[in-house]
Amino acid sequence: MSNHHTYKKIELVGSSHTSIEDAIGNALAEANKSVKNMEWFEVVETRGHIVNGSVGHYQVTLKIGFKIADS
Amino acid sequence: MSNHHTYKKIELVGSSHTSIEDAIGNALAEANKSVKNMEWFEVVETRGHIVNGSVGHYQVTLKIGFKIADS
Amino acid sequence: MSNHHTYKKIELVGSSHTSIEDAIGNALAEANKSVKNMEWFEVVETRGHIVNGSVGHYQVTLKIGFKIADS
Amino acid sequence: MSNHHTYKKIELVGSSHTSIEDAIGNALAEANKSVKNMEWFEVVETRGHIVNGSVGHYQVTLKIGFKIADS
Amino acid sequence: MSNHHTYKKIELVGSSHTSIEDAIGNALAEANKSVKNMEWFEVVETRGHIVNGSVGHYQVTLKIGFKIADS
Amino acid sequence: MSNHHTYKKIELVGSSHTSIEDAIGNALAEANKSVKNMEWFEVVETRGHIVNGSVGHYQVTLKIGFKIADS
Amino acid sequence: MSNHHTYKKIELVGSSHTSIEDAIGNALAEANKSVKNMEWFEVVETRGHIVNGSVGHYQVTLKIGFKIADS
Amino acid sequence: MSNHHTYKKIELVGSSHTSIEDAIGNALAEANKSVKNMEWFEVVETRGHIVNGSVGHYQVTLKIGFKIADS
Amino acid sequence: MSNHHTYKKIELVGSSHTSIEDAIGNALAEANKSVKNMEWFEVVETRGHIVNGSVGHYQVTLKIGFKIADS
Amino acid sequence: MSNHHTYKKIELVGSSHTSIEDAIGNALAEANKSVKNMEWFEVVETRGHIVNGSVGHYQVTLKIGFKIADS
Amino acid sequence: MSNHHTYKKIELVGSSHTSIEDAIGNALAEANKSVKNMEWFEVVETRGHIVNGSVGHYQVTLKIGFKIADS
Amino acid sequence: MSNHHTYKKIELVGSSHTSIEDAIGNALAEANKSVKNMEWFEVVETRGHIVNGSVGHYQVTLKIGFKIADS
Repeated sequence: MSNHHTYKKIELVGSSHTSIEDAIGNALAEANKSVKNMEWFEVVETRGHIVNGSVGHYQVTLKIGFKIADS
Repeated sequence: MSNHHTYKKIELVGSSHTSIEDAIGNALAEANKSVKNMEWFEVVETRGHIVNGSVGHYQVTLKIGFKIADS
Repeated sequence: MSNHHTYKKIELVGSSHTSIEDAIGNALAEANKSVKNMEWFEVVETRGHIVNGSVGHYQVTLKIGFKIADS
Repeated sequence: MSNHHTYKKIELVGSSHTSIEDAIGNALAEANKSVKNMEWFEVVETRGHIVNGSVGHYQVTLKIGFKIADS
Repeated sequence: MSNHHTYKKIELVGSSHTSIEDAIGNALAEANKSVKNMEWFEVVETRGHIVNGSVGHYQVTLKIGFKIADS
Repeated sequence: MSNHHTYKKIELVGSSHTSIEDAIGNALAEANKSVKNMEWFEVVETRGHIVNGSVGHYQVTLKIGFKIADS
Repeated sequence: MSNHHTYKKIELVGSSHTSIEDAIGNALAEANKSVKNMEWFEVVETRGHIVNGSVGHYQVTLKIGFKIADS
Repeated sequence: MSNHHTYKKIELVGSSHTSIEDAIGNALAEANKSVKNMEWFEVVETRGHIVNGSVGHYQVTLKIGFKIADS
Repeated sequence: MSNHHTYKKIELVGSSHTSIEDAIGNALAEANKSVKNMEWFEVVETRGHIVNGSVGHYQVTLKIGFKIADS
Repeated sequence: MSNHHTYKKIELVGSSHTSIEDAIGNALAEANKSVKNMEWFEVVETRGHIVNGSVGHYQVTLKIGFKIADS
Repeated sequence: MSNHHTYKKIELVGSSHTSIEDAIGNALAEANKSVKNMEWFEVVETRGHIVNGSVGHYQVTLKIGFKIADS
Repeated sequence: MSNHHTYKKIELVGSSHTSIEDAIGNALAEANKSVKNMEWFEVVETRGHIVNGSVGHYQVTLKIGFKIADS
């Protein structure tokens, strides 16, 4: 058994009408459908669309790190 | 009729006693008084003032992009 | 009496299960136990741990500026 | 007469279906309608939209510097 | 039906003997063979190889964003 | 009366034959002709022209923040 | 036959109790199980965990570039 | 006796009504009250407050490196 | 008992005649004399002095994160 | 015979009235008069002068890497 | 006669006991001994040595651009 | 005799099959053939080529600072 691990990082953009935290949660929920062993995220960029002079939705770009199985 | 558009970006700092999202919303609301066709924003910096050891208000610097009319 | 001031900046990482704002507040509350004259903070990085496919807790790195007493 | 000048920089996003150079030119042409004494530009970001698997249009963010009249 | 979407970003390097635009187009064409719903790209780096004192080929690193199906 | 404020940031380049501080002051003096409520500046870049092997003039790019009236 | 190639870059984090070079090697070995035509890597970040006041293991984030087959 | 040294870096903000150099000197003078073996500084940011359309005071953020005694 | 923790980050420069890893280890060993609960480090910069055309010693700037006791 | 090579990188600014690619080519052609073994270039900055509201010439800053002979 | 020019940029560190401007001037004076056609400079970094708790000398890293003769 | 010095910085890429430190040493050894008074180096980038799924050689870009003679 190896005594070290290797992780992969992928980059997603989550969106939400509600909040930055909700956009992060939506991206994680989507990634969780196909990625296992997700361990951490890093926010890379926060932006959003404007509709009628207020926030239409937040767009949060984040990197997600997960352990490669059997690494 | 032109088949391309030109956008301008301006940089504002919104503030709020409540949340980062509210500071963003306040900046957009203020910009909306004089700017038309606002389409997107990008968060550039998040900071704030401290009062009595807790957040006095959040200050969020953001760039706002809007389409130049008739461009 | 001096007519200028000197400030020191320290770097903390606050965490919260709830929100980015709460992680900031937790770091300030902790710093407030030993640091006086805190005046402003700057968010340096936002990240977090993932537990069972959703946010376990947010980790917000921030710099805190405070006036050096009698400076 | 002053022996120095002050310049202002504005940030625009030009777009084009054809090329990066054309997107720059479109932004300058649009700015030229209302700004005088434009002297230089700096490319800040190059991106674009994808339509049917190829470039729909290029979007080039640039800063434009112009001399403030009578400065 | 969800009222928000999640996007993934991948990083490619396209190359071309002709132009920067052609290197971008080549990367998109290659990605288009296996990726659906590509919506935008961002140029990350422009470089190239030199052959006999002139450009052998351009190498353009770009990120491509696409909507995750059913997100 | 609102209990928060919104600020706008503009980007200028001041120049001076004398010093970096003088270039900053010249930019502020020029901005002061048309902008009210200027509160802070941030130096973005320091450069200059060379004439006969010594500094012809300093060019200091700075952002200026001012409160939007009635915000 | 095409006279240009397209490359993809992925981001991994390798770890090692021994050295930075070993952490890089471990990430490459893990990637080599499933990725073909790997050509180069770029170190993005070097960090690590501390155990009992000394390095527990190094964590090296790197990007790996590989040629897309038949591109 | 060890043949290597360890240094610590702290981050201060000095201010001055006069010049950037004076703001640096004020920060060093303040640090010198409690820190020994200061060896170098690095300017991180230059900004300032504006009063009546001209510089109220310069604020220079700098890192100061000092040798840890007996390291 | 609090269900979250606050961490502090300090910045050190370790040096070594031997290797980058040894410079990191020396900084950690020095910090370990006075800091408890050190958990992770991040390499910020790698440089060094040159003596007679080869490396005299490596200088590695790193940030060290540690849990604030009772936080 | 050594089994490794050392490269040097120099920084040039090429200009052209026509295109970004042509500005790169002009810089390489000029470097080629005195530099041997040029292998690659990296674009560092793209900017230009504006004449009468359109691009007067593009200025592309690039780094050029070449193998040091007999290294 | 060519209607475009190529420039080269070199990187120097000037120092001075007096001021940042003087350190810039010293670097330019030194470069002027061997380099012709110097046109502009860009400040890359400002730092310095500390002697007895105050500035021993300023060290300003700058890039100098000059036209390549006959380009 | 002048009481200040001017330094020049050059950028090299050293390579090695063995380690990052060896790549740095190889670049310094090569520079040492033609450059005098080398005083320090700064690592700018660490990357490498991959051969058969493991490191073929490390490539370390570094800047080397040396005192200009008689400056």
